[in-house]
Amino acid sequence: MIALSLIGIGTGNPEHLTLQAIRALNAADVVLIPCKGESKADLAELRRTICAEFITNPATRMVEFNQPVRDPATPDYRRRVDDWHDAIAKAWRAAITKELPGGDGRVALLVWGDPSLYDSTLRIAARLGLRTEVIPGITSIQALAAAHVIPLSEIGTPFTVTTGRRLRDGGWPEGVDTILVMLDGDCAFQDLAPEGLSIWWGAYVGMAEELTEAGLLAETGPRILARRAEARAQHGWIMDIYLLRRTGS
Amino acid sequence: MIALSLIGIGTGNPEHLTLQAIRALNAADVVLIPCKGESKADLAELRRTICAEFITNPATRMVEFNQPVRDPATPDYRRRVDDWHDAIAKAWRAAITKELPGGDGRVALLVWGDPSLYDSTLRIAARLGLRTEVIPGITSIQALAAAHVIPLSEIGTPFTVTTGRRLRDGGWPEGVDTILVMLDGDCAFQDLAPEGLSIWWGAYVGMAEELTEAGLLAETGPRILARRAEARAQHGWIMDIYLLRRTGS
Repeated sequence: MIALSLIGIGTGNPEHLTLQAIRALNAADVVLIPCKGESKADLAELRRTICAEFITNPATRMVEFNQPVRDPATPDYRRRVDDWHDAIAKAWRAAITKELPGGDGRVALLVWGDPSLYDSTLRIAARLGLRTEVIPGITSIQALAAAHVIPLSEIGTPFTVTTGRRLRDGGWPEGVDTILVMLDGDCAFQDLAPEGLSIWWGAYVGMAEELTEAGLLAETGPRILARRAEARAQHGWIMDIYLLRRTGS
Repeated sequence: MIALSLIGIGTGNPEHLTLQAIRALNAADVVLIPCKGESKADLAELRRTICAEFITNPATRMVEFNQPVRDPATPDYRRRVDDWHDAIAKAWRAAITKELPGGDGRVALLVWGDPSLYDSTLRIAARLGLRTEVIPGITSIQALAAAHVIPLSEIGTPFTVTTGRRLRDGGWPEGVDTILVMLDGDCAFQDLAPEGLSIWWGAYVGMAEELTEAGLLAETGPRILARRAEARAQHGWIMDIYLLRRTGS
């Protein structure tokens, strides 16, 4: 029987690893490292670094495999994602069958942040029908709050975690004064009326390259756009996140 | 100059500790351990266990101090919390002055979960005006999702993190199909119309005592009430959290 461990490894700082994550890595027979092409090369390299540093079990093998990319030609978003997940599940199955031909053993996958938060790994794993365990990892939400030394919400109040696409299409969510925006390649905060809003932004949070900006959205928004464009050009990729709060002026 | 490290230690499983947390613990001159009275004795004991297991620097001292409790006589919720935070800040200041009379050194405090999530530590620290760093830790949200092997949201959709009090007073938040409810001593899910709702519940998530229940709210709610009462009687305290999702029937 194959058992699958989905291991949250945090946001790019190897020190985000938990003791549980290190133990799970070393309990695996095979650690699958997806290769996603050149644009995210830094991230693949970080996975290798983590494995090289923390795998001490000589029986644990690291295996790289090519992970399919999304087909931009599929027009419907949900369909595009579903097809993509099917293709990845197929690639995982092939890699697992090749590495554990006896149909028995432990496979681990390293997941940026936490497997439960805007990550496809759990949905892809469900397609394989394997016994699955999740090792939680530090998310970019937490790394952002830590970088700014701020609480995520005011005392006893709710907050909403959303995506750039949702914020752009649906505007500010009802009933909350704090939102966390993830997966926003287009800086959806530009479309909000900035009065009374403050922003806490971070890119590469938790990593050596970490960038932060904070202040009133009206003043800080343009600064973020400029720094974001510059950082993206420099690194070839960017991962960022921000918290917006109604703070008054 | 005094520097303060607020160290997230996860939800009660010592293996939730990150390498960053262990490093910060051992960089401290003094680790302050608040004693909050008998009812949460298990939790104070867990802090001591973590310190005993992971502090290897002989120069790091563990110091226990009495932390004030909330005055239930103050009728207004916000005022009650504010007064309480003032009192705790005073107790911290006294303990720090006593332990580091030269006004120089590193103080660490261990925070359950993550200092940024429904925790007062950052607000109390702000009253002291010390240079403060935050080490993120695994939250009960993540431990809940890991225990149930579920993603926090459907693909690309938002979710709201809220409290039992808010859910009871304000009902289901607008614009989201998934909510995470924390700090709910009164099982506010009882007041919702259960049709079409599913619940994923966990108590003591991440700890050896972990309990979980999941299913349609109509069937699972009563089971949670019974298990919760039983566990609370057995341990003398309970910490639980749940995810509610509109899933249809």
